[in-house]
Amino acid sequence: GVTVIVPREDEIRKDYCCAGIHTFNGNGEMTGSHWIEASGLLTSPIALTNTYSVGVVHDALIEWGITRHGGGYGLPVAAETWDGRLNDIRAFHVTKEHLFAAMENAGPGPVDEGNVGGGTGMICHDFKGGIGTSSRLVETPSSAFTVGVLVQTNYGDRQQLRIDGVPVGQQIDDSRVPLAFDQRPDGSSIIVILATDAPLIPAQCKRLAQRATVGLARTGGAGHDGSGDIFLAFATGNHIPAEAEAPIALQMLPNYQMDILFEAAAEATEEAILNALVAAKTMTGFQGRTVYAMPIDMVRDLVARTD
Amino acid sequence: GVTVIVPREDEIRKDYCCAGIHTFNGNGEMTGSHWIEASGLLTSPIALTNTYSVGVVHDALIEWGITRHGGGYGLPVAAETWDGRLNDIRAFHVTKEHLFAAMENAGPGPVDEGNVGGGTGMICHDFKGGIGTSSRLVETPSSAFTVGVLVQTNYGDRQQLRIDGVPVGQQIDDSRVPLAFDQRPDGSSIIVILATDAPLIPAQCKRLAQRATVGLARTGGAGHDGSGDIFLAFATGNHIPAEAEAPIALQMLPNYQMDILFEAAAEATEEAILNALVAAKTMTGFQGRTVYAMPIDMVRDLVARTD
Amino acid sequence: GVTVIVPREDEIRKDYCCAGIHTFNGNGEMTGSHWIEASGLLTSPIALTNTYSVGVVHDALIEWGITRHGGGYGLPVAAETWDGRLNDIRAFHVTKEHLFAAMENAGPGPVDEGNVGGGTGMICHDFKGGIGTSSRLVETPSSAFTVGVLVQTNYGDRQQLRIDGVPVGQQIDDSRVPLAFDQRPDGSSIIVILATDAPLIPAQCKRLAQRATVGLARTGGAGHDGSGDIFLAFATGNHIPAEAEAPIALQMLPNYQMDILFEAAAEATEEAILNALVAAKTMTGFQGRTVYAMPIDMVRDLVARTD
Amino acid sequence: GVTVIVPREDEIRKDYCCAGIHTFNGNGEMTGSHWIEASGLLTSPIALTNTYSVGVVHDALIEWGITRHGGGYGLPVAAETWDGRLNDIRAFHVTKEHLFAAMENAGPGPVDEGNVGGGTGMICHDFKGGIGTSSRLVETPSSAFTVGVLVQTNYGDRQQLRIDGVPVGQQIDDSRVPLAFDQRPDGSSIIVILATDAPLIPAQCKRLAQRATVGLARTGGAGHDGSGDIFLAFATGNHIPAEAEAPIALQMLPNYQMDILFEAAAEATEEAILNALVAAKTMTGFQGRTVYAMPIDMVRDLVARTD
Repeated sequence: GVTVIVPREDEIRKDYCCAGIHTFNGNGEMTGSHWIEASGLLTSPIALTNTYSVGVVHDALIEWGITRHGGGYGLPVAAETWDGRLNDIRAFHVTKEHLFAAMENAGPGPVDEGNVGGGTGMICHDFKGGIGTSSRLVETPSSAFTVGVLVQTNYGDRQQLRIDGVPVGQQIDDSRVPLAFDQRPDGSSIIVILATDAPLIPAQCKRLAQRATVGLARTGGAGHDGSGDIFLAFATGNHIPAEAEAPIALQMLPNYQMDILFEAAAEATEEAILNALVAAKTMTGFQGRTVYAMPIDMVRDLVARTD
Repeated sequence: GVTVIVPREDEIRKDYCCAGIHTFNGNGEMTGSHWIEASGLLTSPIALTNTYSVGVVHDALIEWGITRHGGGYGLPVAAETWDGRLNDIRAFHVTKEHLFAAMENAGPGPVDEGNVGGGTGMICHDFKGGIGTSSRLVETPSSAFTVGVLVQTNYGDRQQLRIDGVPVGQQIDDSRVPLAFDQRPDGSSIIVILATDAPLIPAQCKRLAQRATVGLARTGGAGHDGSGDIFLAFATGNHIPAEAEAPIALQMLPNYQMDILFEAAAEATEEAILNALVAAKTMTGFQGRTVYAMPIDMVRDLVARTD
Repeated sequence: GVTVIVPREDEIRKDYCCAGIHTFNGNGEMTGSHWIEASGLLTSPIALTNTYSVGVVHDALIEWGITRHGGGYGLPVAAETWDGRLNDIRAFHVTKEHLFAAMENAGPGPVDEGNVGGGTGMICHDFKGGIGTSSRLVETPSSAFTVGVLVQTNYGDRQQLRIDGVPVGQQIDDSRVPLAFDQRPDGSSIIVILATDAPLIPAQCKRLAQRATVGLARTGGAGHDGSGDIFLAFATGNHIPAEAEAPIALQMLPNYQMDILFEAAAEATEEAILNALVAAKTMTGFQGRTVYAMPIDMVRDLVARTD
Repeated sequence: GVTVIVPREDEIRKDYCCAGIHTFNGNGEMTGSHWIEASGLLTSPIALTNTYSVGVVHDALIEWGITRHGGGYGLPVAAETWDGRLNDIRAFHVTKEHLFAAMENAGPGPVDEGNVGGGTGMICHDFKGGIGTSSRLVETPSSAFTVGVLVQTNYGDRQQLRIDGVPVGQQIDDSRVPLAFDQRPDGSSIIVILATDAPLIPAQCKRLAQRATVGLARTGGAGHDGSGDIFLAFATGNHIPAEAEAPIALQMLPNYQMDILFEAAAEATEEAILNALVAAKTMTGFQGRTVYAMPIDMVRDLVARTD
């Protein structure tokens, strides 16, 4: 499947956002990165899918732009994680229509989590993973701002999983809930998309993206060699028109006020990962393999015992 | 069309090369960059095409790997420049079969230049551009090595073109050879692929890639805002097996011996661009637009006059 | 004061190490970074001091090289954190002799921790900070390797401190142990130096350095805006002679074997920070300000309660 | 000696500039880079000196800030090139007073070029080098802006020198003007400081800095292994107060208008290098070594012959 983030209600091709990317471990793909890195601008919707569907989704984003808006996104953003254990990935099931449908259905309001869209076949800390979201509302001397996070989780060992600091993963061994993998997977990854309405400039977005590392580390991520841990932050607080003749007016949050956004980004990333784990359901997929959901009651007990 | 570079006779998925990327201006796409940047390894063939065909070529590389080798390239390298003036780019003419055919036909020996493959519809310094290649054989205290360069040229203004330092572009005005564009294009770009048999480590490959800037600058490139000027260097002198249990033996060229490779990379990039201009033929394309070849006799005279 | 790390028993000027740098938050200084970033080589000892003594220590490293070895380190590595609360930093108390003495006294064996050398006046999570070290011995299919970490800690809020995941900082409020600061400091920072005897190439060192972020995040670091969180990893497993005429033989650990080193780097960083907190003693410094050591018994109780 | 660039008439500590750094070859030092890279802000004056005087100049900048303004520049910018052939560099002749005097004397108006300040003992293309400056006034749809460049040149072989594309260096052999070096120097470098009054954001400054490569390449630079070719661009068109409580208003030049600034940066860098060569005088220095000025009449003839 495909999950999309559509900034500015699909007007992003005319009204760019400031943006920045941070790579924690680069064994993955996020197209469009060269221009975001150089310009600090997001100029395309963002689509998340599986590793072997990056191409079709990339092309479909261009086609969507042409069909709907009379002009493609030249450098669309398509990112991936690997679902080859639960999905017959070599059958290339994802089509352009998946992307078109996801774009059609995008809108404000609650976001589906768990085994949906790009997250359908994902595995996280040896439990069923997928899409998760979270956000924080922060007060700065400038104003109140929101930091929202969407993750597609497909990384991590059982042993490393911590919830609110409690090493729950170590206490749920194979005999209680079977591991997803007989041996370590080599296709693990997590994509983190961070969005804020704060008026950030590109350098600030890049720094914000890097803070996803903190939330990931606290949950048990270590950036394994096989992992594509790529984080993209964009800020809607500034508007950069695609066509402008005169200098564009921006606002820049004073840097010291970034601290609370940094902490919010870390917390929301941590919570979004946990929400993906909580929302995901046990799934039996390709070749009859079953990956189990995180046992919520068991985890609640383990965490409660430490309070 | 599609142009491919197939290192190690298509054994690259099992026998990686050291590699590095440098971006002079990032308004373009080269997929697979995150992993090359992080690991310093090239693990895939390289395909060059037009901007709207990155996706299909990306997927076709994966399919090629599966069909031919029983395993995909997880993070294939597909790069692009924009041919929307001569090609009806929105018709998405490039198919997977173009990539498969290019892979079939790849082999040692002379490389076709000019209006071929990924370079078919490209425009350079307001003349017809396309694919160009060049190489240098250098002697170092270690050994003799080759630095080879392949470019897909689609950048630059007429005014800026210099050949061996002579500002020939300024002397071939619109009345002598019509300009390709009424106004400055916004989709200009150049992709440079550098290969060497020297035993370089990844950090050295990255430095080598950066030297393409020198050749480009001497020919008249300035890294315009709309340009995707992305350079990839790989070195076949070291072999990194995809599967290894013990430490892998590498050789590292002493750094001071990089100087002659740096100069070779600059020269070969400059010459490859000129070769693309010399080989490309006048072409009439989409909507009857004609882009003229660089007038070779005229240029020869202009250069000769300064000797 | 000054703390030094002297690789290869001060033969580093002739026998370079592979190395890499990662910056979590760049509000700090580590000289010599441009060359480490470009070449992937460490060619100098490493000195840690306070913010206003970077210059004198930088020059003293050059002078040491000339006096002792007949040749300076052209690009010495001097890093800093800010001790202006406990130290009369504007009095510039650190002299070249501090560096010379530290170099004289460097040697194998246990490392002094807490209020020593560059760590003398540092503050961490609103307790007394300073120098801390830790290491891990890991088994890989290639061999057993050590990952050692030395930190100079001067970052963080009390509220954020976690030990083994337990939020102890929140439970030690101002009434139990006074905070070091009336208001958030703007000069917080942490320098992390990681060393391993594994045969890493530069790209691998850079990735290893980045894993210090994980240990820091788990302890409560968020990379605040005012923080200079700069991490340097070097590997002694390869020898790069300063003067070589022929290609240099290197070994490269297979990348998948980096995972255990990544986890070791994260753990050792976390533990080194805690060791700095445990070793540091309550100190009264400039203008009579007192910064209290972390109350070890209280912390032990808080952590034990959750087991 | 020391050359300083003092933005905002030494009010830079309270009123930051947007800034960016690009490294063409990193075998050199520019302190303060971590924060410029992370924040995109210049917060200190810039000082250029020789390799062994970075430390003393770094500390002197801090002391200047304290003495004059009651507060140091925490992360001062000090950069260097190597003058050990003409200067008895191991004698550490540069003192804090050199920096203080340079700061005292800084002001608007023409800049001294050639054998002055940090450029005193420098060598460029095997002729006498030093300080050079140049600027361009450009018209954009937004407004007219200036791009100014100051270089400290200490790089390059005679063979590679080109002036307006003409390979003059090849035609001035050792018998006409003795080479500065018997063999290739390993301490060559060039520092380029670019300033503009255009309203750029940090990402744009970084891109502008990178264009110094173009001017350097056209003059004959190849980024040799031993070279510290570090470029810093800052823009005075935006004001970032060190203390702000509310979002700061910035202007951002539309990106497509960067093209003319890019070309101006390339041209001004090329001309600043030539101005350094033209202004520098033959000098006899340490151990009686003489380095000859570029023979201006001879060069004029060589260039004229090609018109």
